[in-house]
Amino acid sequence: MATTPDTDKAGSGKPLDDEAARLAATAQADMPLPPEPDDIDDEDDDDEDLVAYTASEAAGAFATLWRFTWPHLRNYKTWLSFVAIGLFIETLFNVIMPLSLKFLIDDALGEEDFQALYTILGVLAAAGIITSIVAVWYERWDARLAAAVISDVRSRLFEHVQNLPAAFFGRTKRGEILSRFSVDMAGYESSVKHFANSAMLPFLELIAGIGLMIWLNWQLAAVALLIFPITLIGPRILTPKAVQANYEQKVNESAILGVVQENVAAQMVVKAFGLQRKAFGWFSFRNNAARRSMADATFLSTMVERTVTVSVLLLHLIVLAIGAYLATIGKISIGTFVTFESAFWEITYNIAHLMHFIPVAIQAAAAMRHMEE
Amino acid sequence: MATTPDTDKAGSGKPLDDEAARLAATAQADMPLPPEPDDIDDEDDDDEDLVAYTASEAAGAFATLWRFTWPHLRNYKTWLSFVAIGLFIETLFNVIMPLSLKFLIDDALGEEDFQALYTILGVLAAAGIITSIVAVWYERWDARLAAAVISDVRSRLFEHVQNLPAAFFGRTKRGEILSRFSVDMAGYESSVKHFANSAMLPFLELIAGIGLMIWLNWQLAAVALLIFPITLIGPRILTPKAVQANYEQKVNESAILGVVQENVAAQMVVKAFGLQRKAFGWFSFRNNAARRSMADATFLSTMVERTVTVSVLLLHLIVLAIGAYLATIGKISIGTFVTFESAFWEITYNIAHLMHFIPVAIQAAAAMRHMEE
Repeated sequence: MATTPDTDKAGSGKPLDDEAARLAATAQADMPLPPEPDDIDDEDDDDEDLVAYTASEAAGAFATLWRFTWPHLRNYKTWLSFVAIGLFIETLFNVIMPLSLKFLIDDALGEEDFQALYTILGVLAAAGIITSIVAVWYERWDARLAAAVISDVRSRLFEHVQNLPAAFFGRTKRGEILSRFSVDMAGYESSVKHFANSAMLPFLELIAGIGLMIWLNWQLAAVALLIFPITLIGPRILTPKAVQANYEQKVNESAILGVVQENVAAQMVVKAFGLQRKAFGWFSFRNNAARRSMADATFLSTMVERTVTVSVLLLHLIVLAIGAYLATIGKISIGTFVTFESAFWEITYNIAHLMHFIPVAIQAAAAMRHMEE
Repeated sequence: MATTPDTDKAGSGKPLDDEAARLAATAQADMPLPPEPDDIDDEDDDDEDLVAYTASEAAGAFATLWRFTWPHLRNYKTWLSFVAIGLFIETLFNVIMPLSLKFLIDDALGEEDFQALYTILGVLAAAGIITSIVAVWYERWDARLAAAVISDVRSRLFEHVQNLPAAFFGRTKRGEILSRFSVDMAGYESSVKHFANSAMLPFLELIAGIGLMIWLNWQLAAVALLIFPITLIGPRILTPKAVQANYEQKVNESAILGVVQENVAAQMVVKAFGLQRKAFGWFSFRNNAARRSMADATFLSTMVERTVTVSVLLLHLIVLAIGAYLATIGKISIGTFVTFESAFWEITYNIAHLMHFIPVAIQAAAAMRHMEE
């Protein structure tokens, strides 16, 4: 309880190369009761949201993932190309969709041109249906590819264990070896399984969205791209404060558990001497401290996200105002204005998606380093 | 390993009223090694995504949450009203934003009316800045309110424990009492802390979005509202199959762990008799079975979400086509068409948000029932 939460450790991207530290962490996680509040999933998620990764930590994790996976991936080039084609088609559709809005507005709706209307809608419907079919098709190959890579990695790990000298098995705890096959494989698995969908697709769509914005109006795109410093640097200011506040909350909550534990253990004494009032007083003192620290921790945690939302909103209003002005003076068409809006939302959304994959990649990288030891 | 994953149990909304079962589950979770693959967070998340809740389970969880929380909430009516005002203003802004797009396009951009342009942009900027300030302000009160309610609940729980007969403490394990203050409180905490932001706000915005769509064009809104059967009923068809496939994957993975464990334990024998080839054969047999079941499980899990995405996309294309047609024949303005599009996205997004809160509420409801025992 006196250490930082587990997720922070795992999430900081530093592999626990010190075996002793890892075992201690495992022992702590297995401690029967009182269970730590961070044993609860939702709590873990909270903490995870709060970890600010540096760009180099993220890049390092992706590099590790790539270096570890590529030798296996290489054996399935056909499947890999199917997945790549699928991702390409899906990204393409995500450009066609907002673009068709532009042509709809400028060429069909404004001009009351039914020929253009039917053509655009026809193209869009065909693209939508083809993309949907392709999506199901490439997900099938992606699932097969992920399963193949994972079982190959497991196989290599088993072979490696077979070839270890007999002395190794005397020295190393059995659970240590098994943990590679269970905990570490599971961490690696989740990153490989979701890589195409949760990392590659948002990344490609992000690039395509930026390209679309620049093509529509590069001056406006230059303003819109301020979203990167806002979403990437912004949270780093508040995050350390929020992490500190969350830590203090945990310390307070563990103090409460201590009071309750003592109270329950000494219940006979409390009852015999009528100490209920006194016991409640001690409890309340701790409880009020926990209440204050919790209010701070909750507020600061929310603010980490809120500051991003608010800055993105204000940037959006600036982009909207400039776009509307350009459209009113006739510098850009109404369709361009609307499509730019939708491309802006698209990139906001894809940045958020990519950010969510970073902790998965970092955990997987730690698992891979542990497997390679 | 032979039981269904923990999250499914906790997530099914059935409180573990059988104490023995709960203790068994706890014991299983605390089992040191080999750790179950579901001990990993990301794995848990996967499973959670797959649980299909019935509407009545969700409603029951919210009712329990309300019944349990209201007596405490009632003591903070001023704070509660601040939060309510904040939520109302934020929802209002989410209607003003798409509406201003309509007026911008119809009155300013189309007519080249700079007076209208400046007025609309001025209103939007003012609304944006006010909403941002209000958002920070009400988050502060919401954090205080949540902390107050949680410490009141903890206080009531402590008082209740104090008043239990002495015989109770002899009968009940100490850890059993402490678990109410740790695990259960944490489960309850996460639902209270995020209620305003993750449940009330998406709910209000959903209602506002539906209202906006109906106001813009009720015929088109009627088509767009088909999104509810699609997102709510759709996943229920594939989910049982995906859950079954994931279960089979876990069984296969646990069989592999068994093989590895045996192999490590009998390593001296393997080495002495040169059984490496044979051992690798046994391992490969299991590993290939796991590979096949994993490909199926991954694919089916992805399909649960994909079928929703694809159906929403196709519905969106239908709405877009009808809207574009209505705009071309002049039945609705271009601004209405664009605003309808953005309101449609808004409700898709808010449905997804609300769906994510349901497992949190159901876990909290289970924790509350356990605390009340």
